Amino acid sequence: MKCSANYVPLTPISFLERSAIVYRDRTSLVYGDVSFTWKQTHERCRRLASALCRRGISRGDVVACLAPNIPETYELHFAVPMAGAILSILNTHYDSAMVAALLTRSRPKIMFVDHEFLDVAKGAFKILSEKAIPLPCLISIPDPHGSVSRATTAATAYDSLLAESDGDDEFVVVRPDDECDPISLCYTSGTTSTPKCVVYSHRGAYLNSLSSILLTEMKTMPVYLWTAPMVHCNGWCHAWVVAAQGGTNVCLRNVTAKGIFDSVANHGVTHMGGAPTILNMISNASASERRPLPGRVAVLTGGAPPHPRVLSEMEEQGFDITHAYGLTETYGPGTICAWQPEWDALPLEARAKLRARQGVQHLGMEGVDVKDPVSMQSVARDGKALGEVMFRGNTVMSGYYNDAKATEEAFRGGWFRTGDWGVMYPDGYVEVKDRSIDIIVSGGENVSTIEVEAVIFSHPAVFEAAVVGRPDERLGETPCAFLKLKEGHAATEEEIVAYCQERLPRYKVPQTVVFEDLPKTSTGKTQKYALRAKAKAIKDLA
Amino acid sequence: MKCSANYVPLTPISFLERSAIVYRDRTSLVYGDVSFTWKQTHERCRRLASALCRRGISRGDVVACLAPNIPETYELHFAVPMAGAILSILNTHYDSAMVAALLTRSRPKIMFVDHEFLDVAKGAFKILSEKAIPLPCLISIPDPHGSVSRATTAATAYDSLLAESDGDDEFVVVRPDDECDPISLCYTSGTTSTPKCVVYSHRGAYLNSLSSILLTEMKTMPVYLWTAPMVHCNGWCHAWVVAAQGGTNVCLRNVTAKGIFDSVANHGVTHMGGAPTILNMISNASASERRPLPGRVAVLTGGAPPHPRVLSEMEEQGFDITHAYGLTETYGPGTICAWQPEWDALPLEARAKLRARQGVQHLGMEGVDVKDPVSMQSVARDGKALGEVMFRGNTVMSGYYNDAKATEEAFRGGWFRTGDWGVMYPDGYVEVKDRSIDIIVSGGENVSTIEVEAVIFSHPAVFEAAVVGRPDERLGETPCAFLKLKEGHAATEEEIVAYCQERLPRYKVPQTVVFEDLPKTSTGKTQKYALRAKAKAIKDLA
Repeated sequence: MKCSANYVPLTPISFLERSAIVYRDRTSLVYGDVSFTWKQTHERCRRLASALCRRGISRGDVVACLAPNIPETYELHFAVPMAGAILSILNTHYDSAMVAALLTRSRPKIMFVDHEFLDVAKGAFKILSEKAIPLPCLISIPDPHGSVSRATTAATAYDSLLAESDGDDEFVVVRPDDECDPISLCYTSGTTSTPKCVVYSHRGAYLNSLSSILLTEMKTMPVYLWTAPMVHCNGWCHAWVVAAQGGTNVCLRNVTAKGIFDSVANHGVTHMGGAPTILNMISNASASERRPLPGRVAVLTGGAPPHPRVLSEMEEQGFDITHAYGLTETYGPGTICAWQPEWDALPLEARAKLRARQGVQHLGMEGVDVKDPVSMQSVARDGKALGEVMFRGNTVMSGYYNDAKATEEAFRGGWFRTGDWGVMYPDGYVEVKDRSIDIIVSGGENVSTIEVEAVIFSHPAVFEAAVVGRPDERLGETPCAFLKLKEGHAATEEEIVAYCQERLPRYKVPQTVVFEDLPKTSTGKTQKYALRAKAKAIKDLA
Repeated sequence: MKCSANYVPLTPISFLERSAIVYRDRTSLVYGDVSFTWKQTHERCRRLASALCRRGISRGDVVACLAPNIPETYELHFAVPMAGAILSILNTHYDSAMVAALLTRSRPKIMFVDHEFLDVAKGAFKILSEKAIPLPCLISIPDPHGSVSRATTAATAYDSLLAESDGDDEFVVVRPDDECDPISLCYTSGTTSTPKCVVYSHRGAYLNSLSSILLTEMKTMPVYLWTAPMVHCNGWCHAWVVAAQGGTNVCLRNVTAKGIFDSVANHGVTHMGGAPTILNMISNASASERRPLPGRVAVLTGGAPPHPRVLSEMEEQGFDITHAYGLTETYGPGTICAWQPEWDALPLEARAKLRARQGVQHLGMEGVDVKDPVSMQSVARDGKALGEVMFRGNTVMSGYYNDAKATEEAFRGGWFRTGDWGVMYPDGYVEVKDRSIDIIVSGGENVSTIEVEAVIFSHPAVFEAAVVGRPDERLGETPCAFLKLKEGHAATEEEIVAYCQERLPRYKVPQTVVFEDLPKTSTGKTQKYALRAKAKAIKDLA
C-alpha cells in the first residue's frame, strides 16, 4: 500500500524542511555582514516560492539566475523547486550572445540577475527582442559586495519580490508529483562543443546529495566554503548537501587565495570544493595571503587528478584532498578513488599512481565501466585496454533538455557514454586517459594527452600545461604542448623537450612547445579545441 | 527520459554488488574460525540465489529463516532478495505454536532452520500438517558453534543447497521490477498483542540504510558486532548498512558480556547495537568478563532511553551511546536525539533531560509529529500536551502482510500511528511518554509509566523496573511497580515508596511494589500485558 504515510517523492526540499527544525537556530549562511539561521533560510525560501507563484510561476516553468556564489543564488536552489519550477543557473562568465542562446533554449519566465551582470543580461534581452522571443521578467539582485552598484533599475529587486508574499501564511510548498520531475537545468562546460543543457531530477538531486555526504564522510554541521561555483552542477549538488547536514554556507563572490584563507580562518571552514585551478591558487598563495587554519579542511576536487606535488604540499598545509571524477551529466562526482588503508604503506610514487586513478562508483551510482563503444563489451581489466568510460544509475541526468536525439545518443546501449577514454584495472578501479576527442593518434599509437601533461607539469618551472595533437603529414598527429611558466621561472623549448624525453617514450614527446596563457572555459577548464586550432595554424618548422 | 542508464530501482542488492568491487578483499564477515571477503560473500549470495531459483523460488515467494545471528542468516539478507523473494526471519525464542502461527500467515516455500531449533521447527510442521497446510521445504543449517549438533537430518543442508548451483555462471540476479516491491517481512515485538507481520520494501530498506549510516555518522569500513538481533527489523537494517559501508560483520550466536568484550578486543569492533538489556549487560559486566577496548565503540540503542547513570558509566568505559527511537513499522530507528553542541555546557541533569528525549526524524524520514489521534491536529509544542506520536516518510513500512484492514487503520489520516503517547517540545524534539495502552489514568490524571520507572531505576539497589496500572475502585487505576534488585542489594517496599514520594507528585507514586523477575518478550522488552494481569490479581491489602 502506497500512501502519504509511507511514500513521499524524494526531493532536496525535505532537507531544508528538516534543517528548519533540527538546526533551526544554527547559522545556515554567512556572507560579509549578512547571516541567516536555518529557520530564517527556510522561511525566506518559502516566501520567495510564494512570491514566484503569485507572479504566475507554475509546475515545470523555468526560472533562470545569472549571479555568482551569493546568498540569493543559494536560496533559489530551494525557492524555485518549492514553487514547482526548474532552476537554471547561468555562468557569469558568459557573454550576452551565449546568455541569449541559452535563454532561447530554456525559455525562463523569470530571470534573477546580479547587478554586476545586468549589462550582460540586457545585451542578451536585446538579442532576444530582435528575434521576437518573449523576454523573461527580470528580478535584480543588488549586492553591496559587488564591484558594480546601481542604485536604480527598472527591474523589481530581490527583496521587493520577497516582500510581495508578506503575510501569506497560507502558501503550501509545491512538491514534485513524481520524484523524477526536473529540479534544475545545468550546462556542460563546453570543452568540446557549445554547452549542453542537462536536466536534473528531484530524485537524482536527493540521492546524489546523500552520496556526496557519504563520499566525503562528511559529518553533520559542516562549514562549507563556496569556492566551487554553484553554476557547476549546482555546486556538485552541495547547495543541497549543506542543507541536508545542517551546515553553514560561507559565500564568496570572487574566489581569491586571500578570500579562501580569510574565510577558513574567520568561519572555521571544514569543507570546500574546487577545480584544480583552486588547488593551484591555494598551493601558490603568497605569505601575505595565507592565514593559519583553525582545523583541517576537506577539499573535494574534480577534473584532472591533482599532481602529487600539489597533493603533498596541500596536505602539509592542512588541506585533505579527495579526488572525484564525474561530468555535468552525472550531477558532478560519479566516481571516487576510494582509498584502501594498506596503500598507506606503499612508497610515495606508487601511492601517487593509485591516487591518480578515478576509482570506483560512489554509493548512489549503480555502475561505472570501460567499454568498447561499438560492441558495448567491457574491455579487459588490465589497466591497459582503452575504452569509453560509461555510467549507469540514479545519479545520471534525466537527459538533455528538449533534445530527445542527443539524449538517446548519450544513453545508447543502456549506459551513459561520457566521451572519456579510460582503462579498467584488475581491482575494479577506472582511470581516465583522455577525452575521446583529445586522444592523439601519432604513428598509429594512442597518446594520452593527460599523461604527457602530467610529465610537463612535474617540471619545477611549469605553472600549467596542456597538450593537443598537431597535424603531421608523416605521423598523422604529433603532441604539441602549450604551457605557462611560474612567475620568476624560466625554461626553454629545448629544456622541456629534453625533460620529456627522459620520462616518456619517443612518440609521446611533444614535437612543438608553445609558451602562453591557456584559454579557459567559464568553469576553469582549458579550452583544448581553441588550442587545437592554434596548433594547426603553427607553421611546420622542420 | 527514464531508461536503464538513469533509473535503477533502489535496492540493498546494489550495496553488496558495489562492495564486491570496492572492498573485494576486505573481511565481510567473521564468526569463530570462519571468515569471508566481500567478493566471497557476494559470490556465495549469488550462488545461493541461483540455487533458490532452481528450487522453484520466484518473485514474491516467501523464504523463512529460524536462526540466530550467524553467517547464514546474514547471507540470506541478500540471497533471498537476489532470487526475487521475500525474507522472513523468525525469532528463535518462539515456540512451535508461535512458529506455526507465523508460517500459516506468511506461507514460505522454503525455510532455513539452524540445527539448534530443528525441534521447534518440526513441532511447528506437525501443527501445520494437522491443519493440512503445505509445509515449506526445510534447509538445515548445521553450526559447529551451536550447542546442539546433529550429524544427520533428512533435510538438505545449507552448504549442499549452495553446491546445487555449482557451475551456474549464467545466473542473472533478480532485481525488483518496482523498488516498492517487498524485500522482507518483520514481526513486531508483541508487547501489546501477538506479533504483527510488517512488510519492508527494497526502497525503504535502501533509504533507511543510508539514513542509518548518516544518523550515526558511520565511516566506511566499520567493524560491526551483531549484538542486536537480525530478526529485529533486519538488525535495524544493519544487515544492509554493513554491506553499504564495506564493513566487517562480527557474528555472535549468543550475546553475553564476555562475548561482547572478547569480540571488541579481538576484532576491533567500532559499532554495535542493542536494546537497553545489552547496555545493562555491558555496564554490569564482571571484572573477569571485561577486556580493554582497542578503541571507542559507537552503540546504537533503542527502546527506553538509557538512564543517565548507565550512560555515564558506559561512556567512561569507552562506549558512545546514540539513543534512537522507532518501531518495527519504521524499519527500526525513526528519530534520533540529535545533539546540539551548546548542550555540552549544561549541567549533568539538564543534559540527561535533553538526552532522554526521542528527538527529531533522521534524514530519510519525512516527518514526525505528536497529534490528537481523533482530530489529527498537532498538539501544542510545549513539552506538556500529550498526543500520539506519528510518522510519515519513505522509511515507514509498506503495510501489514496480507492485512489491508490493519494497514488502513495504522495509516488512517495519512500518518503512521505508533500507538505511543508523547509530547512535542518548542524546539521540535519529541519525547515519548508511554505506549498508549500503558498510560495509567489515576484519579483523572495521566501517569506516564516510563517517568515513574525512571525514578525507581535511579534507586541504587534497583536492576530493572516496570510500572503498570492496577485497578482501583476509587481512583480507577493506581501505579503498581514490579522490580528486580541488583545482586547483593536489598530494599523494602516502604523504602521504594518513600524514595518515589521524594521525587514524584503524589498521584504518580506506586501504591504497590512487587519484587520479582520481569517477564520479557523475545526481543527483550518487558511484557507489560503480563504484568497488568498480575497487578489485577493482587489482592487489595488496604
